[in-house]
Amino acid sequence: MSKTVIEHVLSRLKAIGIDDIFGVPGDYAFPVNDAINDSAEINWIGCGNELNAGYAADGYARIKGVGALCTTFGVGELSAINAIAGAYAEHLPVFHLVGMPNMATQAGRKQAHHTLGDGDYDLFRKMSDPVVAASAIMTPDNVAFETERLIHEALYHRRPVYMGFPADLALRPALGTAQEIPLPPSDTTALAAAVEAIVEAVATANSAVALAGMLVGRTGNAARLERLLDISGLPFATMFMGKSVIDEQHPNYIGMYDGALLEPEVREMVEGADLVIDIAAPLTDFNSGVFTARLDDTRTIWIGHHETRIGTRTFRNVELGDVIEALIHRLSHRDWPKRRPGTIEHGIYDAGDKIDAVSLYGRWSSFISPGDILVAETGTASMGLGFAYLPAGASFHNQTLWGSIGWATPAALGTAVAAPDHRTVLVTGEGSHQMTVQELGQFARLGLKPIVFVLNNDGYLIERLLARDGEAAYNDVAPWRYIELPHALGCDDWLCLRVSTCGELDEAMLQARAATTGVYIEVVTGRYVSSDLALKLQTAMQAIYKAS
Amino acid sequence: MSKTVIEHVLSRLKAIGIDDIFGVPGDYAFPVNDAINDSAEINWIGCGNELNAGYAADGYARIKGVGALCTTFGVGELSAINAIAGAYAEHLPVFHLVGMPNMATQAGRKQAHHTLGDGDYDLFRKMSDPVVAASAIMTPDNVAFETERLIHEALYHRRPVYMGFPADLALRPALGTAQEIPLPPSDTTALAAAVEAIVEAVATANSAVALAGMLVGRTGNAARLERLLDISGLPFATMFMGKSVIDEQHPNYIGMYDGALLEPEVREMVEGADLVIDIAAPLTDFNSGVFTARLDDTRTIWIGHHETRIGTRTFRNVELGDVIEALIHRLSHRDWPKRRPGTIEHGIYDAGDKIDAVSLYGRWSSFISPGDILVAETGTASMGLGFAYLPAGASFHNQTLWGSIGWATPAALGTAVAAPDHRTVLVTGEGSHQMTVQELGQFARLGLKPIVFVLNNDGYLIERLLARDGEAAYNDVAPWRYIELPHALGCDDWLCLRVSTCGELDEAMLQARAATTGVYIEVVTGRYVSSDLALKLQTAMQAIYKAS
Repeated sequence: MSKTVIEHVLSRLKAIGIDDIFGVPGDYAFPVNDAINDSAEINWIGCGNELNAGYAADGYARIKGVGALCTTFGVGELSAINAIAGAYAEHLPVFHLVGMPNMATQAGRKQAHHTLGDGDYDLFRKMSDPVVAASAIMTPDNVAFETERLIHEALYHRRPVYMGFPADLALRPALGTAQEIPLPPSDTTALAAAVEAIVEAVATANSAVALAGMLVGRTGNAARLERLLDISGLPFATMFMGKSVIDEQHPNYIGMYDGALLEPEVREMVEGADLVIDIAAPLTDFNSGVFTARLDDTRTIWIGHHETRIGTRTFRNVELGDVIEALIHRLSHRDWPKRRPGTIEHGIYDAGDKIDAVSLYGRWSSFISPGDILVAETGTASMGLGFAYLPAGASFHNQTLWGSIGWATPAALGTAVAAPDHRTVLVTGEGSHQMTVQELGQFARLGLKPIVFVLNNDGYLIERLLARDGEAAYNDVAPWRYIELPHALGCDDWLCLRVSTCGELDEAMLQARAATTGVYIEVVTGRYVSSDLALKLQTAMQAIYKAS
Repeated sequence: MSKTVIEHVLSRLKAIGIDDIFGVPGDYAFPVNDAINDSAEINWIGCGNELNAGYAADGYARIKGVGALCTTFGVGELSAINAIAGAYAEHLPVFHLVGMPNMATQAGRKQAHHTLGDGDYDLFRKMSDPVVAASAIMTPDNVAFETERLIHEALYHRRPVYMGFPADLALRPALGTAQEIPLPPSDTTALAAAVEAIVEAVATANSAVALAGMLVGRTGNAARLERLLDISGLPFATMFMGKSVIDEQHPNYIGMYDGALLEPEVREMVEGADLVIDIAAPLTDFNSGVFTARLDDTRTIWIGHHETRIGTRTFRNVELGDVIEALIHRLSHRDWPKRRPGTIEHGIYDAGDKIDAVSLYGRWSSFISPGDILVAETGTASMGLGFAYLPAGASFHNQTLWGSIGWATPAALGTAVAAPDHRTVLVTGEGSHQMTVQELGQFARLGLKPIVFVLNNDGYLIERLLARDGEAAYNDVAPWRYIELPHALGCDDWLCLRVSTCGELDEAMLQARAATTGVYIEVVTGRYVSSDLALKLQTAMQAIYKAS
C-alpha cells in the first residue's frame, strides 16, 4: 500500500536521522500526531508546551544534526516561533510540522478556532517565513518533491523549515516520486584556487592559529577538521559558539579566544599570529568578546559555510567540508608554536565556606566528566563554564547568538533524548529555569537521568549586573523552593539536594556522580557571585549597548 | 523637566487606565523597565516568561478594558507573540512595549545577541504586524503623535498594538505635542436610518430576542445595553464568547444559545423569534455550536462594532454604542415572551461517590459566588462551566476563538491584579495548567488569593474525545503531584487539597470559601468524565473538522 502524505514525510525524516519528534498534540494536528504514534520508527516526545518542544528539538539537533517538532495551527506554531528563530540564528535544521485545518475549512474561510476569525489560513505560515529557510503546505501532489526540497534547504542552510499539513490531505496517498536533491558540490576551479591560496599562506607563515567555529560541527565536519589538525599540526582555539566543536583534549587545542575580555595568552597567540584560519566562527557580540576580537583582514583567512575569503578575494560556491578535505591532502605536519589551555582554579576553601565564584566555577569545571553533554543556559553560568577545560568527549552547548533565556532546560531534554547513553548535565540560573521548568517532568516520564544544577542567586544575576540599578524590582523572581520541584513534577526517585557551602557542594557532586537516578542540585549563592566573564561583560556591554 | 520618550508613553497609558504592566526584563528593555520601576503610578508585574506575561495582560484587559506587557527584543517579543495573536482574535487592546537595541547598534547592523545575525532590526516588528492593529518605533520626534495614533488604533479596533523603544531614544526628551485622537462619531444620517429600521422591525415583531455579544463588553457598552434591556423589556441570550457580558441575574436573561448543541428551549426562542437582534456576537465555531446556529438573515439584525446590517442593507460608520444609546430613547417597554435560564443539576450523591460530570459541574456551578471572576480554560472544563447560571456580578472569561491552552493560569493572574477586591476563580484542566504553571508563584508574590481548581483527569481530555484513538500516547501528560506545586512555587500558606469523591469536593469547597489565603484544589476524576457540551462537540467537531 502506498504511503500517505504524512507517512511519506516521516519516512524521509527518519532516513535523515530523526528518531524522535517533540510536540504538543492538537485537533488539527491529529493526523500528524497519529502517524507518529503509529510509526514503529519515530517516537513521539510530548512536551509541556510548544516553546519547550521547539527548544528540545533544538537541543536534539545539536547532538543528532537534525531535529523536529510538531505543533497545531496558530496557537501551537506561534508559541514555538521563538525557538524556531533560535534554531535559525544558531544554524540548526529543525523541521517544524504544523497540523492545519482541512481544506474544506480553509476554502470555506470558516471562522474556526485557532484563527483570527478572518478566514486567512496562510497567515501564520507567512509569519514564520523570516525564521525558516523554506516552507511548504504538503499535498498529495507536491509531497514527494517538496519533502526533498525542504530537506535540501534545511541541510544546505542548516536552518529550520516549515511543513504545513492540512488534516485531510495528510491522510491521502502520496502521489508520484522525487529524487533526493544532493547538496551541491563545490565549484572545482574556485575550490582549487582557494586551497592553493591557503596552502601558500600557510607555507609562508611562521605562526598560525585555526579558529574552529560552530558550523564545523553543524555541517558534520568535525571529524574531518580533527584529521586536518592532526595532519597539519596547526594549533586551534575556539570561540564561545564553537566551544568543544573539536575535542578540547586534542593536543593542538590552545584554549578559548574571547577577544580582549579573557585569556590574554590565547588572544596574544591568535591576534599575534602571522595567519589566522577562521573556520566559520562568526564575530557576533558574545562570540567576539563584545566586539573586542581584532582579526586583521590581511592575515585572516575565512573559510565559511559556502565560500572562502582570503584578503579581498572571495571564492564562491566553495563548501566548507571540501576545503577541509582538500587541505588534508595538501598540508603537511609542522611544529607550530602552541600552548596548553588554562584551567579554572578551584581555590582553597574550608568546607563551611559560602560558595563564591572561584569555588563554584572551579568545582563545576572539574565536575564535568568524559562524554558529558553540558547544556549551559545563557547568563552568568554559561559565561563561567565557557572557560572550563573539558575532558575527552565532553561537549558544551549554549545559545550564544539568540540567547533566549529558558532555552537550556528543554534543550537538555532534547540532548538527553538524542543521546541517552551520555550524561546530560544542565547548568541553569533560576530565573531562566522558571521560564521553562515544566520540562523537568518529561525526563522522568522517559526514564532519562540528567544532572541538573540550578543556580539560585535570588534573581536575574546577569541583568542585575547590566541594569542601571541591580536592585530594581524587575530583577527579582518569585522565590521558589527548587528542590521540591522534581517530586512535584513526577521525578519520583531523583536525588535532590540544596547546597550553600563548599563542603555541601563537594559532597553533592560526589553523590551526583554515584547516583543511578536523575539528580537535581540547587546551588545557593550570594546575589552578586559572578563569573569573571560576566563581570567583564558588565563593562563591555555597557559601553556598547548603553542607552544614554 | 520635560518627559522622556518612555515617560511620555507611560503617562498616556496611565491616563487610559493602565496601572500595571506585565513583563520579563531584558538588557535592551532596561530603559523601559527602569521607567516603569521609577513610575509612582504604574506597577511592574514580573512574570515567569513572556508568553505568560502576554496572557496576563490579556486577562487584565478583560477586566480593565486595556492592558500592557513589556518584553525585550527578538527572544522576548516572539515568545509573547501567540498571546498577542490571542488578544487580536479576542479583541483586547493590549499594548506591547518592546525594548530594542540602541540606534548605533541598529545603524551599524551589528551581529548582536537576540538577532538572527543578519543586521536586520526591523524583522520582528514586521513578524508581529499581522497580529496587531498598528505598530511604531518610538522616537523623540514622533512619540507625541505616534502614542496618540497607537492608542486610537488600539481602542478603535479593540486590538493590540506594538511599540518599539530603541534603548537610547527611550531616554531622550520627548519633543512636541499632539492632540488626543477621539474615536470617530457615527455618521449621523446612517445612524438615524439604522435606528429607524430597527425600531420599525421591533414594532412589527411579536417575539424578539437580543444576543449580547462579547464586543458589547469590550467596547465598554455593557451598562448602556443593560439600560436598553431594562427600558425595552427585550429578552436576551448570550453565546459562549459573550457569556456574562450582561449580568446573568438580569430579569430578561433567557440563557445560553449554542445552536443545536445544548439548551433546546433557548434555541427555540432564538431561532423561532420574529426578530433576532445580534449585538456583535460573531458566528465562530465554538460560538455557534460548531456552526449549528441558524440565524435567518431576513429576521436578524446585526449591530456590529462599526456598522449595522439589516437584511441586505448595511449602515456603515455606525458605532455600536451610538446605536444602543439611540435605541434607549426610541424603544419602549413591552412584555416580550421570556423564560428563566436553566441551571446545572447537582445530582444526588453519597459522600463517598467518585466525582462524575453531573456532580462536578453542578458543584462548580453553585460554587461561583456573587462578584467572582471565573477564568475558565479552553477544554472540557470551560465547556461545562459555560452553562452555569452565574450569580449577580459574577463574570465568565474564556478564550473562545483563539483557544490557546495554557492561557487561563496567567490570564487569572491578570484578572486578579486588575481586580484584587474580587475573587478570581481559575478552573483549568491539568494539561493546560502544565503549559504555563509558573505563574502560580506570582500570585503569592503579589499577595493575591485566587481559588484554583485543577481538573486532573490524566491527560488532555478534550483531545482524547476528539482524537481517532483517545488512548494514543500523545494525549498523556507528565504525572505531576499538583497539590505540591503551590508550596514549591512559593505560595507558602495556601490551602491545598486533593479530592476525588463528592464528599471531599463539598468539604473542599466549604473550606475554600472560608479561606483567607490562596486556595488550590486538585479535582481527580476518571479519564473520560466530560461535560455535556464536550460530548456533543465530539460528534459535531468530527463532522466538521474530520481529516478523512
